Amino acid sequence: MPDLDTEYFHSIQNKEMPLIVQKYGGTSVADLERIQDVAERVAMTYSAGNDLVVVLSAMAGVTDGLLRLANQITDDPDRRELDVLLATGEQTTVSLLSIMLESMGYPARSLLGYQAEIVTNRAFGRARILEIHAERIKDLLSKRKIVAVAGFQGRDQKGDITTLGRGGSDTSAVALASALKADVCEIYTDVDGVYTTDPNICKSARKLDRISYDEMLEMASLGAKVLQIRAVEFAKKFNVPVHVRSSFKEEKGTMVVEEEKDMERLVVSGVAYSKDEARITLTRVPDRPGIASKIFTPIAEAGIVVDMIIQNTRKSGLTDLTFTVPKSEYQRAMAIQKEVAKSIGAEEVLGDEHIAKVSVIGVGMRSHSGVASKTFAALADENINIMMISTSEIKISCIIEEKYTELAVRVLHNAFGLNAP
Amino acid sequence: MPDLDTEYFHSIQNKEMPLIVQKYGGTSVADLERIQDVAERVAMTYSAGNDLVVVLSAMAGVTDGLLRLANQITDDPDRRELDVLLATGEQTTVSLLSIMLESMGYPARSLLGYQAEIVTNRAFGRARILEIHAERIKDLLSKRKIVAVAGFQGRDQKGDITTLGRGGSDTSAVALASALKADVCEIYTDVDGVYTTDPNICKSARKLDRISYDEMLEMASLGAKVLQIRAVEFAKKFNVPVHVRSSFKEEKGTMVVEEEKDMERLVVSGVAYSKDEARITLTRVPDRPGIASKIFTPIAEAGIVVDMIIQNTRKSGLTDLTFTVPKSEYQRAMAIQKEVAKSIGAEEVLGDEHIAKVSVIGVGMRSHSGVASKTFAALADENINIMMISTSEIKISCIIEEKYTELAVRVLHNAFGLNAP
Repeated sequence: MPDLDTEYFHSIQNKEMPLIVQKYGGTSVADLERIQDVAERVAMTYSAGNDLVVVLSAMAGVTDGLLRLANQITDDPDRRELDVLLATGEQTTVSLLSIMLESMGYPARSLLGYQAEIVTNRAFGRARILEIHAERIKDLLSKRKIVAVAGFQGRDQKGDITTLGRGGSDTSAVALASALKADVCEIYTDVDGVYTTDPNICKSARKLDRISYDEMLEMASLGAKVLQIRAVEFAKKFNVPVHVRSSFKEEKGTMVVEEEKDMERLVVSGVAYSKDEARITLTRVPDRPGIASKIFTPIAEAGIVVDMIIQNTRKSGLTDLTFTVPKSEYQRAMAIQKEVAKSIGAEEVLGDEHIAKVSVIGVGMRSHSGVASKTFAALADENINIMMISTSEIKISCIIEEKYTELAVRVLHNAFGLNAP
Repeated sequence: MPDLDTEYFHSIQNKEMPLIVQKYGGTSVADLERIQDVAERVAMTYSAGNDLVVVLSAMAGVTDGLLRLANQITDDPDRRELDVLLATGEQTTVSLLSIMLESMGYPARSLLGYQAEIVTNRAFGRARILEIHAERIKDLLSKRKIVAVAGFQGRDQKGDITTLGRGGSDTSAVALASALKADVCEIYTDVDGVYTTDPNICKSARKLDRISYDEMLEMASLGAKVLQIRAVEFAKKFNVPVHVRSSFKEEKGTMVVEEEKDMERLVVSGVAYSKDEARITLTRVPDRPGIASKIFTPIAEAGIVVDMIIQNTRKSGLTDLTFTVPKSEYQRAMAIQKEVAKSIGAEEVLGDEHIAKVSVIGVGMRSHSGVASKTFAALADENINIMMISTSEIKISCIIEEKYTELAVRVLHNAFGLNAP
């Protein structure tokens, strides 16, 4: 605990003091015991001479509990009011952490979204951060306060409370780190870092020391749940170094950083998978201009996000069109397509919920050929049939039968030498 | 639910629309079922053509639960941060009520303390309202919205969350009614209104139709818990008509209003009691200037509020000095006085926790003599010994043995004819 002289010293001298933004997720603040652990880590970081902003989620389960409460009233709660309700979760954890830090003798101050001036648009429940007026935080930091900011929430230009959507606290942390030009944004979670693949499936999975923003984006969007996609996008856009690490261990995790020339010389950095999709096929679709629009416009209007699309043209001027949708939207999408099929004269609508997507990801693909063929060969060797393929500059995704998921992940992990450090 | 035309009509015509502020306490919003009842009453009031501001407390027990949580961390939680924590209670109820009203088709909007611009001083946990900038509420009312304001909370001039202390929602409601020049401030509670005395003690207790601010103030400070003292002070200062009524019944309760010439012609309006005090006596205190200061300064410095003080001068230049303190502070006050007694040379310090205060209250006393003697005679008839007496313009309080409390209340209630309407 700094005495007055130290505080004064810092207020005039701290230009060069490192600034760290730490974010702790719901499991890290699940009860007072866990919050005590967070407080101790925060105190240690502070005492080591860092300026510190701490971003917290709600206690694990609290946001879901509040949602259930609102849904007991109505299936479709008013969105503005729902955000007012949900925002209490993070308000609780930041005040508890501040009370704990103060009781330990550390100067802490909580700020809610509106107090931290995290200004968003008015899209309640999925608001986007427009700007952060960081003057108050900077002022508190200059007085050597530990600033605890409620994650997941902001305010719109009228001062109404908004929330950023699932996992929004990651985005809060990265956005604050960017606004404050922090040296690093540490994301504390219940895993050690980013792995080459899911260690629950593949024993030889290895923690990565570094990963590029682009790879992390692919990993996140392909099923690795360690970091929220929007937070990675934000980090990439503003070049915020992100450190993903465990709140239960001391050792370093994975740095998510800008791609570097001398980055790990692996062609492939990781293997991701997802079982959250379903496949829909329209057979014998008349192949004429505007037909794709007729098929996908009603899906888009229903708010359903389509991921992969493939089209196999037959000789007869008819085509088979296959696409994937989230499994949770499968029934709705099927119903819509049955109507569409009738109106455009397609033969039938086939669906399959038992699929999975496995993907290999790596910036090394940009300069290495043969990754695709190696992927297909590795799967073929195990008699795993590939139903759909989609590629980007740095990833190859294959849709396979769901039952082969774990096998495919292990096979690809070995094929690209990810088990060997 | 008004259609667009109705809304437009109201926005240009509603200058004469009555404005009601309704406040619902913790038991009235204890769960979703109760909140549903509140929503229905609110909807009914709105549909009858009133503009409406609804002030809510936290669900019964929630504030205490949050306090317990903070006290698990430390006995003395940081006050600023504690207010951030406690404020979540009312935030939850206003958002739930608004979600419910919206789901019923009524246009509702929640406002937290800072959004309603209830500006207070920075005395966290017991903040005083300095001013209310009611523009946003007026704007919402002009659009025929039902405005649900979180009670108990405000913001200081820096935008930090403050709370007003126990029962602060009453004060929020009255302050809002004053700022908005509401026609009436309705306080919904779990009792029917203000009674001539506690119906649990005296079966013939009668609900008052009207009571003056001054009488209500005495009732509140003497133990009738129906309305918070500061709220009554506020109502008196700004002449806000307050209607205390039950949230579980339809019938009218008690109007708390300015004293009127033609008010009920009773000399005494009510009998109150309190068992929350204890008595301390210093015997054979040297009777010289400055001695009272020596006795009461250390008590004041310990933050203990002294209520009644009496002094009996003996012939010998010695005096006995007796005073009352809150029972919760009794042990501390005794310890302090033992030190004081030594330093000033008093003989001994006697204490008594088993006392009660019974009081008769009525603005009629101003013009009627004989109330005091009638009070003493009524108690004497039952052999109830009076230990201390304190009077004001409109009340007489007697300290008696605790075991006679109920008997004394009934005796005084009868003596002043309060059982006969």
